[in-house]
Amino acid sequence: MKDRFIEEITKKIGAEKVLVGSELKDRFCHIWETEKPLMAKAVFFPTTTRDVSDILSICHKYHQPTVVHGGLTNLVGSTEVSKDEVVIAMERMNQIEELDPSSRTISVQAGVILENIHLAVEKENLLFPMTFGAKGSAQIGGVISTNAGGLRVFKYGMTRNLILGLEAVLADGTIVSSMKKIIKDNSGYDLKQLFIGSEGTLGVVTKAVLRLQEKPRSRNSAFVGINDYRNVVAFLKFMDMELGGILSGYELLWEVNFKEMTSSSTNIPKPLPYGYTYYVLLETLGSDHSKDEQLLEELLGEALSQELIDDATLAQSSQHLDFFWRIREDVDVLVEKCNHVQNFDVSLPIKDIGNYVDQVFDAFENLPEVEIYFAHGHVADGNIHFLVGKSNGTTELTKKVNDIVYGPLKQLKGSVSAEHGIGVHKKEYLQLSRSTEEIELMRLLKVSLDPRGILNCGKIIDA
Amino acid sequence: MKDRFIEEITKKIGAEKVLVGSELKDRFCHIWETEKPLMAKAVFFPTTTRDVSDILSICHKYHQPTVVHGGLTNLVGSTEVSKDEVVIAMERMNQIEELDPSSRTISVQAGVILENIHLAVEKENLLFPMTFGAKGSAQIGGVISTNAGGLRVFKYGMTRNLILGLEAVLADGTIVSSMKKIIKDNSGYDLKQLFIGSEGTLGVVTKAVLRLQEKPRSRNSAFVGINDYRNVVAFLKFMDMELGGILSGYELLWEVNFKEMTSSSTNIPKPLPYGYTYYVLLETLGSDHSKDEQLLEELLGEALSQELIDDATLAQSSQHLDFFWRIREDVDVLVEKCNHVQNFDVSLPIKDIGNYVDQVFDAFENLPEVEIYFAHGHVADGNIHFLVGKSNGTTELTKKVNDIVYGPLKQLKGSVSAEHGIGVHKKEYLQLSRSTEEIELMRLLKVSLDPRGILNCGKIIDA
Repeated sequence: MKDRFIEEITKKIGAEKVLVGSELKDRFCHIWETEKPLMAKAVFFPTTTRDVSDILSICHKYHQPTVVHGGLTNLVGSTEVSKDEVVIAMERMNQIEELDPSSRTISVQAGVILENIHLAVEKENLLFPMTFGAKGSAQIGGVISTNAGGLRVFKYGMTRNLILGLEAVLADGTIVSSMKKIIKDNSGYDLKQLFIGSEGTLGVVTKAVLRLQEKPRSRNSAFVGINDYRNVVAFLKFMDMELGGILSGYELLWEVNFKEMTSSSTNIPKPLPYGYTYYVLLETLGSDHSKDEQLLEELLGEALSQELIDDATLAQSSQHLDFFWRIREDVDVLVEKCNHVQNFDVSLPIKDIGNYVDQVFDAFENLPEVEIYFAHGHVADGNIHFLVGKSNGTTELTKKVNDIVYGPLKQLKGSVSAEHGIGVHKKEYLQLSRSTEEIELMRLLKVSLDPRGILNCGKIIDA
Repeated sequence: MKDRFIEEITKKIGAEKVLVGSELKDRFCHIWETEKPLMAKAVFFPTTTRDVSDILSICHKYHQPTVVHGGLTNLVGSTEVSKDEVVIAMERMNQIEELDPSSRTISVQAGVILENIHLAVEKENLLFPMTFGAKGSAQIGGVISTNAGGLRVFKYGMTRNLILGLEAVLADGTIVSSMKKIIKDNSGYDLKQLFIGSEGTLGVVTKAVLRLQEKPRSRNSAFVGINDYRNVVAFLKFMDMELGGILSGYELLWEVNFKEMTSSSTNIPKPLPYGYTYYVLLETLGSDHSKDEQLLEELLGEALSQELIDDATLAQSSQHLDFFWRIREDVDVLVEKCNHVQNFDVSLPIKDIGNYVDQVFDAFENLPEVEIYFAHGHVADGNIHFLVGKSNGTTELTKKVNDIVYGPLKQLKGSVSAEHGIGVHKKEYLQLSRSTEEIELMRLLKVSLDPRGILNCGKIIDA
């Protein structure tokens, strides 16, 4: 027997937008966990903001908890569902409503897949700079709700910086819409900030106006070898100063990653010899390929003669460029090497990263159950990812590894999540990044905006 | 007789940090309204965050309304005080706590004057890009609380984009501190967004960590004449694409401004002939003066041959550069021409600005009491300022002029305040930029965070 609230919603939005019971068997909470089918009371597929509003106002009336589903690519359990919850799946709200090349904006519904935005704006020689591995599945509503980061943050900022207008539905069904194309607006509180990065716990994002950039016409990259971490920082400052505004990426790999990615199994030739402690992959996005290349060559020469760096090589062709970036981006190659993998996404002040990672690596060396580990990241943003492979998947060992990685962050004023969010997986570590007063203020916001606790409850904090 | 709460605060923070009665005679609500001395129950001068916390917790206990005072340079009445309120003046919290060149951050107390931040970071060849006319008086706490804009938003963003860490005190005295230097932090809600731009109505900003940039070594400018507004937009796109990341300013002046600023009274030679409808002042910030100059020259030549622009001239010397920018920045020259001056700070989609300003100018022409008017602005940000001089200062005429400027903005999805904020002066026009649902949500935040209404009440909204 259907719950009464499901009947009410079905009547309101139409049966073709509702799945219940055995109809859910092909749906999941997470695209990488397809062995666990979705347990939920129902899944609703709104096609309009009004539908979302109707669903929420009825759920609100019945105190019925909900979870919003986008592309299900998040890594921290933000989209997990219990059998007592219902899912609001945004996939049918997948329309690009307007692309405005002169305002350099695109207005989209929450269910539009990130890659489809890329393809649409490219036709106008524009760029939506937010990009990451899961772009072919991630929906823009989820990108916004998790304030996604990725590879171009150094130049263009996190998702938060790319949103001009937003529409969201509150827990009681109220539609708060501000679909504006304007860059500056100090008319009262900037309400969209509430919904960006709050993982669906304060409202459901239904639409957004995204800011676009002119599409860069040239992309150049270089791989650099450095032995002293202080020079990783100094070289970043040097390049940032000398390159004007075209430096767009400054990625760091520890040697263990570089070796693994250029081993015989990958078919990627190594662009530099082994033996350096650090490998920096840098990228420029500009308007003139050969000018940028010449400048980069001059600067690398100068950095070598100043002994800021120990070795360097430029990508000489688009195939080179592709190889360079696969060394950084084909993380799956590393994941496959790891049994019982744990992955991390921390941030800390850039100058402390060298010592911190040394300390973490030492602790891994001293933990016999750790079989293999990797480290790489967006070092210019202070953001490092670890991958750890272990001999078993026990809770005890998982906790030991967590403690090694997260333990030093409180004192270093870092974050247990630079990009991925807290979800449910990192909840117990939230207090390492945030004070009691901060967590209490989060709770106050949650209780004020969602007094009946129906929006993605138990994610980030317990209210 | 002193109020009891004043005695309690005095006992807690020390008498040297308290002014009452006739001791207030040299203090004001606004540095440009020195004819109106401050009417308030008391002024407190905290020197620590703990002091601010003590003051607020006692005011909270006694339901005593407060107003925070920084540099008093805001233009919308955000720092006005009634005789029943007390002032928390931040001027003694004026310490730079740390400048960290490798993290490229500066940690400051709220009372530090913006220009002092500029001077401190320049010594390290760094830049804090937020700058505007009142930089010699404005305190960073106020800059943050009003999400200040200014001249470099196009390249570096509003104040909101430049804040990494923040400390604020809530209405009940709770200190919410997150003085972090990290660029990426998705560990829970981004609470600092609550306090940035909310004009002191949700908490008192006491400290911040600001993000710094490498100081550009070259600055070039050009003045351009354009007759067709569509080309103002097209030329921006063209330059933005061709200049890679070094375009930092794209300011628009209507001919009336250009003429007035280069008239005999100013001693500024006109860089271009009169007769163009629009004058664009553009700026690049890069790392190589002569390379940037050469590129700019090539691009202006190409834009001329493509008929994107009608005339152009490059600043050939630092004196030229100075003249160019005085034409845009010496707004006082224009203000002096205006009787009963009204100033505006609106934003709207960039493509609509040409028609909108034509419409506003036509309406001014048809209103006999309008004697003179000017328009200029950060057009790349969609932000236009008007200055209007009138034959009288009656409320009725003021309202007529407001209606001309603000009237079209609702339909155009613009904002009645791009930069300055709402304060008290623009409260009645807030509903043109924001929906009923948005204003209700603002009210919910206000009531949740400040249930006794003691933080800058009556500003932005009535709770």
